[in-house]
Amino acid sequence: MKLREIGEFGFIDRIAPLGSIRTEGVVKGIGDDCAVISVGGPNYLLVTTDLLMERIHFLKKWASSELIGARALAANLSDIAACGGTPLDAFISIAIPDEVEVEWLDGLYRGMAEMARAYSVNLLGGDTTGSKSDLVINIALTGTVAPDEVLFRHTANPGDVVVLTGPTGQSAAGCDILVHSPELPEQTSRALIRAHLEPAPHILQGRVLAASGACTAAIDVSDGISSDLGHICRDSGLAAVVYEDRLSVSQELISAAAAMGKDPLEWVLHGGEDYVLLAAVNSDKLADLEKKFKANGLDLFTIGEFLPGDKMVLQRSDGQKEELAWGGWDHFR
Amino acid sequence: MKLREIGEFGFIDRIAPLGSIRTEGVVKGIGDDCAVISVGGPNYLLVTTDLLMERIHFLKKWASSELIGARALAANLSDIAACGGTPLDAFISIAIPDEVEVEWLDGLYRGMAEMARAYSVNLLGGDTTGSKSDLVINIALTGTVAPDEVLFRHTANPGDVVVLTGPTGQSAAGCDILVHSPELPEQTSRALIRAHLEPAPHILQGRVLAASGACTAAIDVSDGISSDLGHICRDSGLAAVVYEDRLSVSQELISAAAAMGKDPLEWVLHGGEDYVLLAAVNSDKLADLEKKFKANGLDLFTIGEFLPGDKMVLQRSDGQKEELAWGGWDHFR
Repeated sequence: MKLREIGEFGFIDRIAPLGSIRTEGVVKGIGDDCAVISVGGPNYLLVTTDLLMERIHFLKKWASSELIGARALAANLSDIAACGGTPLDAFISIAIPDEVEVEWLDGLYRGMAEMARAYSVNLLGGDTTGSKSDLVINIALTGTVAPDEVLFRHTANPGDVVVLTGPTGQSAAGCDILVHSPELPEQTSRALIRAHLEPAPHILQGRVLAASGACTAAIDVSDGISSDLGHICRDSGLAAVVYEDRLSVSQELISAAAAMGKDPLEWVLHGGEDYVLLAAVNSDKLADLEKKFKANGLDLFTIGEFLPGDKMVLQRSDGQKEELAWGGWDHFR
Repeated sequence: MKLREIGEFGFIDRIAPLGSIRTEGVVKGIGDDCAVISVGGPNYLLVTTDLLMERIHFLKKWASSELIGARALAANLSDIAACGGTPLDAFISIAIPDEVEVEWLDGLYRGMAEMARAYSVNLLGGDTTGSKSDLVINIALTGTVAPDEVLFRHTANPGDVVVLTGPTGQSAAGCDILVHSPELPEQTSRALIRAHLEPAPHILQGRVLAASGACTAAIDVSDGISSDLGHICRDSGLAAVVYEDRLSVSQELISAAAAMGKDPLEWVLHGGEDYVLLAAVNSDKLADLEKKFKANGLDLFTIGEFLPGDKMVLQRSDGQKEELAWGGWDHFR
């Protein structure tokens, strides 16, 4: 049997039960942005790990090695943000093909170190090895969070509002431009390509959500709203409605879509790697949370609601409702 | 500049300073078997990470996927053992080429889970992705150890004896047989190939060393005695002498070397991946430690001594001394 027959999440469901050997200390094992572990101190330990493959996740020609390094760490920091945590230490494994220059690797580590410095994270011992083919980077990142502040995916309640800490679709549009339409004018493409190559992890946003007492669940938008909202719905046993007219669609996104003959909403709903946070917020506490975000100079967009049930619905600007199908990325399909 | 010009350890020395951003909580960052972190609880957190590349570290045709999975986890467990720790949770990242069958992957996870169960370790959330070329497995493993029991590389003292918790060279000979001499009779090859494909991490040995108060430094033999003893010598600022007639050379090793026209001592001194522990032990406490090992049914071989200075010497059975040159593995040379 091939993986494409069962898909990435089918594969994870298949192997997950094998790994649960000792329940003591494990608050959350598989199936959230981070594993959440109790190691005896006052706070929980968060652990996340991300494997980046050349030709799957990045092409060396698309960006400087500094940007590739910074982006690799940003994706992991985003997982800590989604759990409301503060990042601690990153452990870098790298497999390097023969032809890669030391200077290129210097840049990769400079980029990671600059991103690490911005969030007071160490780059500690990892593993370096050769590769017969692609460059491979694995980052394992630890973080910490108080037990009463940790944010999960499975704890949203019906009636909670769906919020985003930033716009979505920018990164996916930037990626599409790099692959299919590098000829687009810079005025249109620059911000989108930058959103793809230089995402900023929403660590501060995650901390404000976690400390507010208003947030009941969170995830980072790595695979697209439809997929990541879908994770919260499935894990919390809920339905959700998203209102088209609440979605943030930038002028650059509209221009790029027009030039490329695309619907910008495809990017906004199904495009991943924006690394903003999608969260469930108690509606009674929303106004107070909005004040906290404003006080910190941060964006907060209310885009929908969680409801009893199990379907996701997109309510169009004209009031029409349609199913919001899980349209996110599956590595094996 | 190419990596082969500076080598693996030159590269690590080059990037290590970049990563030290926040010293708080970091007991040992880069340059030991594990990073040692203080996260607020009574015990230290240990973290190690290992990246295994197809065609660099393993070939699918050499062994069942069960064995490949078990071996991958064993290598990480060995790093926890070298720090005297108890392993906790493993985080598995895997990049899978299109043509790999789900059944092969089931075996890989079964093998890892069986090894994990033997040491009460969980396999928790990691990352799964596609690969355009080789299969890639990264394992990040956490462990725990009391602050007064953690074993480092840099803390050996002159006059300490050099001990091994098992024989070396078996695994390297098994690997050589798989690559160059698969026609050797099974009577000679079986135990050696098994040592290569099914190494057992010396977790219990590490715990006995750590709790004894006799052990001043330790490392696991992943790159060969010459390389790993060299790490302790360099990091502790010491010289060492190894006595040829104290080295354990099995009958299989002698037979295989004769059949292949090799010197078995090359495997014993420079062959890696045995995953036994090499440790420095206070000579006044050696007899007591030997009793503890015996009481636990474990082997302990005294093979040499640490001395003031910076050279490693092999004292031959006839009393002649020669330099023991760093002959271990470098991924980039």
